[in-house]
Formats: sequence, structure tokens, C-alpha cells
Amino acid sequence: MTSIASNLQIDSTRLWDTIHETAKFGLTAKGGVRRLTLGPEDKQVRDWFRAACEAAGLQVHVDGLGSMFALRKGRDMSKLPVGLGSHLDTQPTGGKFDGVLGTLAALEVVRTLNDAGIETETPLCIVNWTNEEGSRFAPAMMGSAAYVGDFTTENILGRKDAEGVSVAEALDGIGYRGQESVGAQKLGAFIELHIEQGPILEAEAKTIGVVDHGQGIIWYDGRITGFESHAGSTPMPLRRDALAALSEIVLAVERIARELGPNAVGTVGEAVIAKPSRNVIPGEIAFTVDCRSNDDTVMDALDKNLRLAAAEIGRRRNVEVTIDLVWRKAPTHFDKTLVDAVETATRELGYSNRRITSGAGHDSCNLNTAIPAAMIFVPCKDGVSHNELEDATQPDCTAGANVLLHTVLSLAGVASK
Amino acid sequence: MTSIASNLQIDSTRLWDTIHETAKFGLTAKGGVRRLTLGPEDKQVRDWFRAACEAAGLQVHVDGLGSMFALRKGRDMSKLPVGLGSHLDTQPTGGKFDGVLGTLAALEVVRTLNDAGIETETPLCIVNWTNEEGSRFAPAMMGSAAYVGDFTTENILGRKDAEGVSVAEALDGIGYRGQESVGAQKLGAFIELHIEQGPILEAEAKTIGVVDHGQGIIWYDGRITGFESHAGSTPMPLRRDALAALSEIVLAVERIARELGPNAVGTVGEAVIAKPSRNVIPGEIAFTVDCRSNDDTVMDALDKNLRLAAAEIGRRRNVEVTIDLVWRKAPTHFDKTLVDAVETATRELGYSNRRITSGAGHDSCNLNTAIPAAMIFVPCKDGVSHNELEDATQPDCTAGANVLLHTVLSLAGVASK
Repeated sequence: MTSIASNLQIDSTRLWDTIHETAKFGLTAKGGVRRLTLGPEDKQVRDWFRAACEAAGLQVHVDGLGSMFALRKGRDMSKLPVGLGSHLDTQPTGGKFDGVLGTLAALEVVRTLNDAGIETETPLCIVNWTNEEGSRFAPAMMGSAAYVGDFTTENILGRKDAEGVSVAEALDGIGYRGQESVGAQKLGAFIELHIEQGPILEAEAKTIGVVDHGQGIIWYDGRITGFESHAGSTPMPLRRDALAALSEIVLAVERIARELGPNAVGTVGEAVIAKPSRNVIPGEIAFTVDCRSNDDTVMDALDKNLRLAAAEIGRRRNVEVTIDLVWRKAPTHFDKTLVDAVETATRELGYSNRRITSGAGHDSCNLNTAIPAAMIFVPCKDGVSHNELEDATQPDCTAGANVLLHTVLSLAGVASK
Repeated sequence: MTSIASNLQIDSTRLWDTIHETAKFGLTAKGGVRRLTLGPEDKQVRDWFRAACEAAGLQVHVDGLGSMFALRKGRDMSKLPVGLGSHLDTQPTGGKFDGVLGTLAALEVVRTLNDAGIETETPLCIVNWTNEEGSRFAPAMMGSAAYVGDFTTENILGRKDAEGVSVAEALDGIGYRGQESVGAQKLGAFIELHIEQGPILEAEAKTIGVVDHGQGIIWYDGRITGFESHAGSTPMPLRRDALAALSEIVLAVERIARELGPNAVGTVGEAVIAKPSRNVIPGEIAFTVDCRSNDDTVMDALDKNLRLAAAEIGRRRNVEVTIDLVWRKAPTHFDKTLVDAVETATRELGYSNRRITSGAGHDSCNLNTAIPAAMIFVPCKDGVSHNELEDATQPDCTAGANVLLHTVLSLAGVASK
């Protein structure tokens, strides 16, 4: 690598300004962003992004599900491009960084290379994946899922939002149903920079998370049927209290995840009493459980221990407990060579770092099933994401973009002059 | 007492038929009753009740809040009448027995005395209290509360239902705003037959509950503020999970009530997660607590132990827990002489029985603050009430009415021929 390349740093101010410039597309009163996929604000940011990429000399093309690919030529065009990017859609009350950082840092990487006059050996391809968030259309990470063949394009085009608008109609409505077949733009690798969306890096004062795993996920729908009765006239020993049973299950989920930790989490996120009243013992409750681990063996143990605990609680309390599996997704083991490349770039740049598991799902988790992929995390304030309060510091975003730059350079190589 | 009087039994078939005849006013498809206070069905049953009382020779008058008083003369009209009755309004999806049994059994007592040609020494007065249930207008037990002076008539007349209709308008709408001042019809005592609305008598196979206490009630509104965060990316040790904290509180309420038992109950009836999502750790939950005991000392202990437990859980889990007192009502200690009279009548009739605390509130609890009052309970199926499935057997209802008859006779005395 040339010394120019090895000392190269992205333009921190330009990256930061770009992040805040695009935040105007869907900016909320509280300083967050509401940019639902394929809506008018998504069209605005896509138009902006296309123009910015073209201004940087990239050739932009769009696939049949709206995912945008901005190609920067390499010296050897027979090689598959190194992909970098993320997504520009947000949660209904999302923040300025989730997805945006990774996409705009990819743009900043290209701008930096342009400014330094660096050509890479392998071409680069910035990607803005359609509908990572899943807030308007299910499933989340739709564009990358179809890209790797988990769904057909037709299947995804027919998905409808809550108002009955299909993905096809929404794409046509903003003019982003591209000509290119989904999956046609081959990539040799994909690197995604993202905020952590968790509190670990901040708690440990680390600048960079070298993401080596994505958690596997198990989702359950649960239901407890006890007996609704009068809070005043039903003695404690004669109760079949569904909320008391749920309470034991919530604490069991917590205990099981702790016992199988540190690479296990378990959460009861929803719990709805059927006919709540302050003087009625809850008779029926619906609830959800979310269990995650980066280790298949631990996932099996989470599943088994949850079911055993729920059954024991139900028997002992004489209430019916059902735990139905809704979805199970295997853990992601990110490509070892790419993870090592991220770690090496991080060390060479001198940033404090640690290996980390992604708790959230990402397009890179989908991509890793078909091509080598890896991720770079930077801290976010209080671990908060999917929230208008989502925040990250300029130095951390800059550090993440620099790691992205040097990881990409190490993978794509600098063309000899 | 004459031997006719001491052997007297009510007419079981007539009582049973009367209960089922009046159930047509608001009968639901599932066999329950929907007869909201001062609505059209309540007018129907009131008209029926007035006519039936007048047919039985009673003089019916109505107070300014619609409570109906049906007077049967005694030999000594200088004595205050013995009151008996209950209420004819129901819950929105109520049953055939709650309130109805006590009111129609009172009518049956008078019919039985009429048939036997028995005059009592003291006059009798059947009462149908307005709005015991409180489903349409707050507070519940409105008629009896105003009767004993807990509220002024004007205060109650101004209360509005969910549609903005006032009690005054509703009374005028069905023609049941009476001329008589509330409280003007003095009573020397009040005896109320009611279904238990709990499972104790059925569980112990007792026919009659001799009600010696009404539970005191403490209602709390609680709130837990933890920190909403991502279910996947927040490690177990860094969580501030509001639902896990609530779960400990629910189990603490259960434990505290058991430890202070058998005359203590505690219930978390409502629990609402602020923004529930299956992949978000609950950050905020509102909940309610209902604690009851028939013993003031135990009520104090329930209050103290709940607050201590909630504070400890909040501290340990680093979540904010607030427990606000909404309402506290002292226990009812029913009049000892009247309770003994109920017990004596029950024993002389040979019914299996036990002393029991009323878990629910009743008009008699209000009345007992001003005049001697007592209650008679009969079992209800599975302890279910405030439900269309509410059920009681004909033999049990008959037994309860017989106890009512003989308690009233013992209090009112049989006039010498």
C-alpha cells in the first residue's frame, strides 16, 4: 500500500455535515428522523444520494426492489466489487445514525479516495438496501433477503403496508423500481459500518466494535389461561392468577439468559391482560418472548430451559401455559477473513476495540449467508436506537468511517500507479 | 314466636321463578343480564318491582336518587322498620343473581308472611338501592352512600356517565327521581342476602355464609420507569427492565398477602407496558394494586410491606417505582347483634355454615356506618360473579331466603294475635 493510502483519513467535518444534511429528509420536532421506506422522505434522500454518488463519479443503478448500487470502477474490472454501505430508511420515530452512518460513511470513503486520487485494484460498490427497518413492510431487511435468494422478487413486490399499498406500488410511486434483476449486481464482499444499538462499547469505553457474530433469534408467542375472579373475594390459595404466572415466567427468562450468559439474552417485550380491571384477578394474558445468542448450542438451551420452566410454572399454579415458536433464525458467524481485516485496520489506526456480537439484525447478516460479510460498530449514547434520542459522537463516527476506509482498502487493494 | 312462624319456609319455586322472570329485563344471548343503572332495562325492572310490591300490599316510595322503599306495616308503627333488600342493577355483562337475589328474596319474605297471615311487631321495608354496581356512574353503591351521608344528593345528581348524561337526567329520563329526601326513610336495621362472589363456601361445601366483616380496601396506582432498550443488543447485566421489576412486585404482593393471611388478599389487576414491542425491553409500565383485609392492623401491614418491597426492588434494579394511594376504605365490622341473629337463624334452620368476610363492597357496608347491618351469603358456582356465567343453585338461594326470613322475623318480632 502506498504511504498516502496508509495514512489516509476521512474528512470528519464533511461526514458529519453530510449526516446532518440528509437528516432534513424526515426530520422530526425532537431531532429524530421519520423516513419510512419507499415514502416521500425516502424518495428525497434517495434522490439526494443518487446525485451525491454521481457527483463523486459513481455509476448508480437500481434493482427491481429499489436497492441502490453505486459503482466505483477499479483497475481490474474482472474482479467482483467490494460492497460497502447500509440503509437510508428509518424507524417511524428513528434517529439520525441507524443505517445512515454506514451509507454516508461509504460515500465519504469514496470521496476521500477521490480527493487522494487513489484507484483501487478491485471496484467498489456502495449499497443502500431497501427496507432494512421493516416498519412499513414486512419482513425487515427485505432488499438484502431477496438479494441472497431468501425470497423471490415477486413475493416481496406483493407485500403490503398497513394501508394496503404493495411494495410494487410504493416503488413505482417514488420511481425506484429499477430495471436490474435483484441479485444481478454481484459483490465479492460486504462491509457495513453501524452504530452498536447497544450499551456495551460505551460502558467499556471502546471506540470500535469488531463484529464477529450476529445473534440468532427465537421468537415465541405465549398465552396463559388462569381464572378471572374477584380480587376481594378470592382467597390467595384459591387463585389461578395469570399475571402471577407470567411474572414467574418473566423472571425465569431473565434467570435462564443470565445462567447461559454472557452470550445470551432473553426478553418478554409484550404482555397484554385480556380484560384488565383493578379489582379482577387477571385470567388470561398474551405475551411474547425474544431469546438470542450467537451460539447455536446456547440457543437450544434457551429454548429447552424456557419450555421446561413455563411448563413447571403452569403445573404448579394450575394455569395453562402455551409457548408457540414464531420464528427461529440461526446465529450469523461473520466471515473470519473479513472480521480479521476489520480488526487489523482498527489496530493499525490505534482505536480501542473489542470483538462484539450484533444483537440486532442487519442486512450484513443476510448477505453473510451468500458472500463474505463483516461489520464495524461504533458506540451510541446510552445504547439507545430506534428512538429520536439516538445519538453518536463525531469522533466515534469518524473513527468508524476510517476503519471502514482502511478495511475496504485492504480488501480492494490500491492500484499501482 | 308462634309455631307457624318458627316452621315457616319461603316458596322456593316462586322465588326461583321470580328471579328468572326479572332476568328478561336485559337478558343477554349468553344467559346473563345487562341492566345498567337508570337505563331502559332498569326502568323495566323497577316498574315490575313496584307493581309486585304493591300487589303484595306494600307502600312504595322513591327517594331523590331513585332508591326504592317498599313499606310493610308492623303492629307498632312507632318502631323503625327492619330493612331488607339489595339492588336490581347489574354489571354491563352481569349475571342473574348479583343483587337480584337479595331484592327478590326480600319480596319473597313478604309474600311468605302475607300467605301465612303473619303481622310483624316492627314494620318491614324492602329496599332496592340505586347504582350499586357503579358501572355507569361512579361511585359504586351511590344510593346507600348518599343515604348515610357520605355524599350530598346534589353531588351525586351531578355525576355523569361516559356519554355525559348526569344522574339527575338519567333519573328524570326513566321517571325515578322521587320526592322523598335521601335518608328520610329511617331504618332500624338492614339485612342483605347476596351471592358470595367468591369460591370459599363452594370449596368448603357450606350452604350459608354468616358475614361478619367486609374487607377494607386499599387501591394504588403504580408506575415503573426503567429504560427502554433493544432486546438483542442490551446484555442482561445492563438492563433496566420495567416488566422484570413489575414481575417481582406482583410476586411480592402475592407473598405479602399470603404471609398476612388468611384475612388478607393482594392483587395486581392492571399492567400496561407503555410501548410494547417483542424486541424492545419494556421501559415503562403502569399498574394497579388492590389490597384488602377485614383487619385494620393487617391493612397497615399490607401497605407498609408493599411500599418496602417496591422500594427495595426499585433500588436493586435501578428503576424508578412509584406507588400512589388512590383510595382507602376501612374494614366493615358488621353489627354483632345482627350477625348473631343471622347465625342463630341459620343454625335453627339446620344449614351448614361458617363466618365469612365479604371480599366485595356492598350497600350494607355503607349502611353499617350509620345503622346496624348484616349480610347472608350463599355459594355461587366457581366463585364467579360480574359475569354472564354467574350461577347459583335453587336450593342454596332458597336456604338464603329462609335465613333472611327468620333473621327478619327474629328482629321484627311476630305480632301477637
